[in-house]
Amino acid sequence: MKKAFFADDIKIAVIGGGTGSFTLLTELKNRTEAIAALVNMADDGGSTGVLRDELGALPPGDIRQCLVALSDSPELRDLFNYRFDEGSFKGHAFGNIFISALEKMTGDFAKGVELASEVLNITGVVEPITLTNVSLHMKDGDGTVIEGEYEIGNRRFTGNTLDFWLEPRAEANPHALKAIERADIVLIAPGNLYGSLAPALLVDGVGEALAASQAMKLYICNLVTKPGQTDGYTVTDFADEIERLAGTKFLDAVIYNTDQPSQALLDRYASEGELAVLYDEEKSSKAHYDVVGAGLLSGRIWRNKSASDPIASTRTLIRHDPVAAADAVLEYYHARS
Amino acid sequence: MKKAFFADDIKIAVIGGGTGSFTLLTELKNRTEAIAALVNMADDGGSTGVLRDELGALPPGDIRQCLVALSDSPELRDLFNYRFDEGSFKGHAFGNIFISALEKMTGDFAKGVELASEVLNITGVVEPITLTNVSLHMKDGDGTVIEGEYEIGNRRFTGNTLDFWLEPRAEANPHALKAIERADIVLIAPGNLYGSLAPALLVDGVGEALAASQAMKLYICNLVTKPGQTDGYTVTDFADEIERLAGTKFLDAVIYNTDQPSQALLDRYASEGELAVLYDEEKSSKAHYDVVGAGLLSGRIWRNKSASDPIASTRTLIRHDPVAAADAVLEYYHARS
Repeated sequence: MKKAFFADDIKIAVIGGGTGSFTLLTELKNRTEAIAALVNMADDGGSTGVLRDELGALPPGDIRQCLVALSDSPELRDLFNYRFDEGSFKGHAFGNIFISALEKMTGDFAKGVELASEVLNITGVVEPITLTNVSLHMKDGDGTVIEGEYEIGNRRFTGNTLDFWLEPRAEANPHALKAIERADIVLIAPGNLYGSLAPALLVDGVGEALAASQAMKLYICNLVTKPGQTDGYTVTDFADEIERLAGTKFLDAVIYNTDQPSQALLDRYASEGELAVLYDEEKSSKAHYDVVGAGLLSGRIWRNKSASDPIASTRTLIRHDPVAAADAVLEYYHARS
Repeated sequence: MKKAFFADDIKIAVIGGGTGSFTLLTELKNRTEAIAALVNMADDGGSTGVLRDELGALPPGDIRQCLVALSDSPELRDLFNYRFDEGSFKGHAFGNIFISALEKMTGDFAKGVELASEVLNITGVVEPITLTNVSLHMKDGDGTVIEGEYEIGNRRFTGNTLDFWLEPRAEANPHALKAIERADIVLIAPGNLYGSLAPALLVDGVGEALAASQAMKLYICNLVTKPGQTDGYTVTDFADEIERLAGTKFLDAVIYNTDQPSQALLDRYASEGELAVLYDEEKSSKAHYDVVGAGLLSGRIWRNKSASDPIASTRTLIRHDPVAAADAVLEYYHARS
């Protein structure tokens, strides 16, 4: 309600689920009320993995992060991200338990997300991209089939242009497809390309919806490569791989970062095998989509340990700035539409 | 807000915590907005006991029931009473986890209850009667000291007029004392006399507050006796024991039930050693408080298995009718004040 003043009716759908979605959503909610966060549902690590195993629940973790990003209730944000540090609940984020309890009680994950959205007083909507209980699979370069997002996310691949698929075949959540169809802007959030974006893009119907939608379709490119998975990938490599996974050349533009991180930070990342994603002028000039540079780096020092900020507790310190990312997206949109 | 029309400014404090409090609160909230549920904090059984053991949390179970009774959000009521039936969470009521997570996160049980109250959109307030982490103790007739509300609640006593106390000494929650001080009516809810009412009345300061308060002080008498604990107790025996536990002759009246349950129901109870609490004319005529009869029995058949109704899942079927109990209390109050 209180954002009616700012609302300019731009409808934005954000596809992803992890930290990248969280970052974008925290600021986009200040620009428009018409936000739909479409969330990958293949997570099977940590607290989420235990809830899937023990309760047969759908994965709540990424849904929780998107709900928290869109919430206007600081205490409930903190509560949803609160992790028990002892007892039977050790390691579980409270919000995961909340969402799973609602799912078990109502027998309806989407209903649970809806009620959690009300409790958290969120701007916009959070939609699971599928309600099928799926698991990500891949065939590695040596022919090995790997199952599970967590396993795949932590693997060093032995080949390129690998096959990824979901089992069982995932039917898209009709609400997610509708959001893509009706959006003015569809944003592919930065994130783990194979572990987090792939399972969203591989859902049946998502590629078709992206191809058919009249929305402006943008990808906010990752900042660094992931060792063993995207080593050496340039901006266009990331974008091309996203289109390959979606099965359609749907992108209008990829927005990449032009800010230079400090050398100390780059060195620290390099020691972990993570290197800045580079702009490749030749490939970019031939791409069917625009390749747009913008200063997207956050100058913020991520030391805050607030429970509501999942970014704070992660190791990575080269981060997108939510305001800069939102500015870049909306500037591009207004310039081209 | 929406009850402003009905509000007649009668301030009611209900002392108890279990099913009796739940029953009274579900209807009293329709008569006034100025309700304070003051809740015994010695529960250590079931889900609550595990949370106390594992997390060092204060007992959430009775607080949860009172919150649910006062809530206007049907789905959240159901969620708070939802019990996991598998996995690490098995047996835990979701609301208990919610309250304990808030307590652990904020380091402040009262703050947690306050936030839960907002989420559940309750009428009135729920106040722990103490914030000291206490355990109920008793010395049985043979000299044995028994510790813990659950143990005591399930014991057959070997003597009468036994000693009960809390360890460590419990300091009253100042908000609870203020509610007693400011109330127009203080109600002692029906309930397990030694397991549930005693630990509320034994808190330091509660007896003094009851003695000092200008409120009309009423006890809604239990309907049946508890085998091994209150066998043969009449209406005045219950009332007298409540005053002994509080250490003060504070009651203005006790309201007892005059409805006759069906013979089949009485037989069923009798087979478990539970008999109707009888009115004793001679003792009543000598009591310093009024002994007031009223038809208080519920004709409702408790078969509804809704998760939000803790009564439904209990065995006992001789129950107070919430509307009749509220009517009796308010009629007595208006007649005498």
